[in-house]
Amino acid sequence: MTSPGSGYRSPHFGEKLALAVKAKRTPAVVGLDPRWRELPDELRSQAGHDSRESQAEAVCRFCEAVVDQVAELVPAVKVQSAFFESLGPEGMGSLARVIGYARQRGLLVIVDAKRGDIGSTAEAYAKAYFAPDQTAPWPADAITVNPYLGTDALQPFLEAARAAEGGVFVLVRTSNPGAPEFQDLTTVAGKPVYRHIAEWVETQAAATAGHSGLGMVGAVVGATYPAQLEELRGVMPHAWLLVPGYGAQGATAKEVVPAFRSDGLGAIVNSSRGIIFAFRRPEYQSLSSQRGWQAAVRKATEDMIAELREHTPAGRL
Amino acid sequence: MTSPGSGYRSPHFGEKLALAVKAKRTPAVVGLDPRWRELPDELRSQAGHDSRESQAEAVCRFCEAVVDQVAELVPAVKVQSAFFESLGPEGMGSLARVIGYARQRGLLVIVDAKRGDIGSTAEAYAKAYFAPDQTAPWPADAITVNPYLGTDALQPFLEAARAAEGGVFVLVRTSNPGAPEFQDLTTVAGKPVYRHIAEWVETQAAATAGHSGLGMVGAVVGATYPAQLEELRGVMPHAWLLVPGYGAQGATAKEVVPAFRSDGLGAIVNSSRGIIFAFRRPEYQSLSSQRGWQAAVRKATEDMIAELREHTPAGRL
Repeated sequence: MTSPGSGYRSPHFGEKLALAVKAKRTPAVVGLDPRWRELPDELRSQAGHDSRESQAEAVCRFCEAVVDQVAELVPAVKVQSAFFESLGPEGMGSLARVIGYARQRGLLVIVDAKRGDIGSTAEAYAKAYFAPDQTAPWPADAITVNPYLGTDALQPFLEAARAAEGGVFVLVRTSNPGAPEFQDLTTVAGKPVYRHIAEWVETQAAATAGHSGLGMVGAVVGATYPAQLEELRGVMPHAWLLVPGYGAQGATAKEVVPAFRSDGLGAIVNSSRGIIFAFRRPEYQSLSSQRGWQAAVRKATEDMIAELREHTPAGRL
Repeated sequence: MTSPGSGYRSPHFGEKLALAVKAKRTPAVVGLDPRWRELPDELRSQAGHDSRESQAEAVCRFCEAVVDQVAELVPAVKVQSAFFESLGPEGMGSLARVIGYARQRGLLVIVDAKRGDIGSTAEAYAKAYFAPDQTAPWPADAITVNPYLGTDALQPFLEAARAAEGGVFVLVRTSNPGAPEFQDLTTVAGKPVYRHIAEWVETQAAATAGHSGLGMVGAVVGATYPAQLEELRGVMPHAWLLVPGYGAQGATAKEVVPAFRSDGLGAIVNSSRGIIFAFRRPEYQSLSSQRGWQAAVRKATEDMIAELREHTPAGRL
């Protein structure tokens, strides 16, 4: 039931994500990070190397083909905007097409944009991804945002997301080697900087929690630091955790166990390179040479789903 | 003279900025924040309100007209990417055209993108703004970046900038009311989070310092917090400070005094709304109605330059 005054209205991003995870019976998310140089040779040679326009076209076709392979298997894709932005306005056009295609195939789309700015500038960024009638240039179900500027800089994203029935994932603890430098500084309150941010995320998540107990504001917490994952699951019981770092960045299914609630909800786990470029991994090369790189994408996704099912609470979904 | 091993090569962003500030005898920077709703009526009515394409076109013409007014007066413009991004791929096309136009008119262009991501993703973002041959989609002289992810996430931006003879401004202490929430948390080392970041910026600025003593890595420090401005000038003697918050955000010339070295170099001061939308300010409405909104842009720029000259060390330039 909806608790009065909670700000929860249906449909609600936290609920949509819970339904999608339960429907697909997996928290696996496929990351669309279409690095031009890593694309299958057939797409690169068709495009030629000299025009951003043709590269943007190839990137679009690559992502759509990945979506075709994974649409029935996973609840969502995470699209990395940087690899489209590096191809200029044409690349940003491809980003819009890929988002539209993935949504049309029934996937939730998280745009990993890591945007952050103040006041009306944050509103302008938010407008690029969220509109109540889904007419934004890049209509996302959720985007990632950077909290360094303060919570007044995050609020415009939350408001725009809510009006569009979308969600926001706040960077809390990232997966890179340098993440501890500023994020883990211990404050005089006796806790790391990231925990201050996590506590704010929890207030926002709790205030918007729906039937599943999960709100429309979540947190990015890297899989490469399991101790922080466990701590932050405890600090943010109402927040969806978006967990990058699985696969190519080194984390395994066992390391993401602490991200989940006991019912298998509460976290989605992203793998990008390990899936979309699976045809480059030794274990998928034979399959790929027989049935194409697309078959490797599908098999790597199925393998990730099976691993998460075997080793984490996601097996209870 | 170049100190051996300093990484300094000519031309160098810190030097280019020093030369431009000295040539124009002002540290005033005009911020191109083309909020669609604030544009002059004549541009909005020509464009119509219903198509992002026509809005992007109007935004482009507005910015180019501002550049025409200020190109002889100031060393640089700061372009706010959010207001282009909110207009979709067409808006991002306009951003490229505005950057090209401003550079052609002899202005340095700082793209206020506040990007930040890890590893090869940061490389992809950097490629969007920096290329050694100036063939990047949005060729910037400098961009702003967000440090929350750690210094390994900043390095790809520094490397790409250096190869393109560009610069990077790291967000250290922003100008918004919520800036203190996370940036000012005191760590067990007895200093605020932003100072940890400032100290890293100083190492990078010192390592790349040129003839002027200023490097290719600078810092964003808001004008709305004069005490932090003074502290951070001391902490980062080799860093250019990019100081937002002047004018519409409330800071005056007297408040930005601590940002400068005694010779008037070391800081650039940005005003956006107060200049580009000066025609909406009571003191410029008579001028604007007689000679057009463009005349108000020019007069507001001249007034800002005069105020900085009168009240700050910029008078010694």
